[in-house]
Amino acid sequence: MKVLTKNETALWLGERDGFAILTHTRPDGDTLGSAAVLCRGLRQLGKTAHISENPEITPKYAHLHKNLTKKWVDAGDHIVTVDVASPGMLPESFRSLIGSIGLRIDHHATATSFTECELVEADAAACAETVYDVLTAMGVKLDREMAEALYTAVSTDTGCFRYANTTAHSYRTAAACADTGANLNAITQVLFETNSFSRLKIQSWITENARFMKGGTVAVVALPLAVEQEIGVTEDDMDSISGFLRSIEGVQLAVTIREKSNGTVKASVRALPGHDAAAICARFGGGGHKGAAGATLTMSLAEAAEAFTAAVMQL
Amino acid sequence: MKVLTKNETALWLGERDGFAILTHTRPDGDTLGSAAVLCRGLRQLGKTAHISENPEITPKYAHLHKNLTKKWVDAGDHIVTVDVASPGMLPESFRSLIGSIGLRIDHHATATSFTECELVEADAAACAETVYDVLTAMGVKLDREMAEALYTAVSTDTGCFRYANTTAHSYRTAAACADTGANLNAITQVLFETNSFSRLKIQSWITENARFMKGGTVAVVALPLAVEQEIGVTEDDMDSISGFLRSIEGVQLAVTIREKSNGTVKASVRALPGHDAAAICARFGGGGHKGAAGATLTMSLAEAAEAFTAAVMQL
Repeated sequence: MKVLTKNETALWLGERDGFAILTHTRPDGDTLGSAAVLCRGLRQLGKTAHISENPEITPKYAHLHKNLTKKWVDAGDHIVTVDVASPGMLPESFRSLIGSIGLRIDHHATATSFTECELVEADAAACAETVYDVLTAMGVKLDREMAEALYTAVSTDTGCFRYANTTAHSYRTAAACADTGANLNAITQVLFETNSFSRLKIQSWITENARFMKGGTVAVVALPLAVEQEIGVTEDDMDSISGFLRSIEGVQLAVTIREKSNGTVKASVRALPGHDAAAICARFGGGGHKGAAGATLTMSLAEAAEAFTAAVMQL
Repeated sequence: MKVLTKNETALWLGERDGFAILTHTRPDGDTLGSAAVLCRGLRQLGKTAHISENPEITPKYAHLHKNLTKKWVDAGDHIVTVDVASPGMLPESFRSLIGSIGLRIDHHATATSFTECELVEADAAACAETVYDVLTAMGVKLDREMAEALYTAVSTDTGCFRYANTTAHSYRTAAACADTGANLNAITQVLFETNSFSRLKIQSWITENARFMKGGTVAVVALPLAVEQEIGVTEDDMDSISGFLRSIEGVQLAVTIREKSNGTVKASVRALPGHDAAAICARFGGGGHKGAAGATLTMSLAEAAEAFTAAVMQL
């Protein structure tokens, strides 16, 4: 594996043509936005580029990939992953490609190298910020459609500039998006200023059922699948649900555990500075960032709740 | 009255010494932050400057003016107002100064000129952005304490970059604040990322108990005093609670009715364009604007809920 700088990445992309861009499982605004920005940037330079269809893309973000996708990776395509920290973060249908991936552009501090080359900027709030810098180095000019994807990525990964990962570079990237004349406020309204009824119901349930410990600084909630089904939440409704528990006054460290239909449970940890969400998740085979991390466990919801409660009480 | 450009304002300030800075009544993050940035900037240039104590400053923002205030405006002080659109926006104790105010820096589109000179940038999301530009033109270098005040101003007036008034300049100003190394996230956490437990409980209660009608476009909730008391909400917790019901996906018209301790009930109506909240409230002796209106009624909570439900169903 070869570590590239941003300029070397720009050269790597510049020397090639025919790209297939891969996004991660349970795709969020950053991986989907990064892919759209990269695909559009490469096309602006006259190159052939597609995003490989992510089967898990949700309606909220589907417009970002309109006219940019193809179902298969063609032989000879140069494969690039965006915002993918490890092979396990690739959707099942992409796993067969492991071993033939040319480049990984990412911003996860704890990651598993699995590509020929990689550019990882752990300080970047959003992977799309790095993608944007690389494209700028290649001479790409940000247009409205790219700006919409870029702003979606930066705003979702920074919680609309509210998380501790937000940097001066995040703000400057948003300024560049605004300069294009893109209607950023329309994006903000949809992503951050509308509460679905199901979302509010699940927030109510969490507010009522979370366990608050250590003087209310630590909170753990275990969400039974039956509750999610009864309320009828979609994955869009559950977007950043772990951030909700953290937002409760006094809570510095929040663990949200969801029961999945395949018998596993998924834990998401959100933490204010002074805590390390990634370290906690690493104990359970997961990873991520200091402020936000996750793990998938093969145990019952009750067992997972107990295990995470024990882990956070030991801190 | 003389209209100044930013450079002329920089000259106006540069030629003088001894400043008293005035903020507006019910002071918010922008007027208080603008005053702090201006005061610190002038002091950095070796000038004497104070903020005249605003008697209505709240604990949330008091730290911004620490060591910057004085009680009185001294004879010979050059008086500057920040974020004050009209004489009526000055606290009572400052009203005697009207007629001797040298400069108004503001960003209100509809305003009454009442000062010797003025610099008004109606496109600026926050008045502090304009103050910052003027100080930059004077050679002031942003430091951490100024950045904290500036960021407080910009983030509060843009709803943390979520309102439609947010511009590329707002983001660039925030980037400059981040460049100083100031802990902006600590400010964001306090101002935007903290939901009191009581607030969430009352939102839960509203989510569970509101009546949604006309395909979910109209919502009515009646809040018994006993529920508010049991949850233990403060008036701070209830801030903009009627906006909460309106924010639920699909809701265009929301009626929130609260039972008061004096035997009356208070109804607040919030509406999206296409509805008239004021017209509905006028039927009950109240009033307001199309988007937000209210009425106080002398009847039981149940009767009020019935009356408003009947009124909105007739629309």
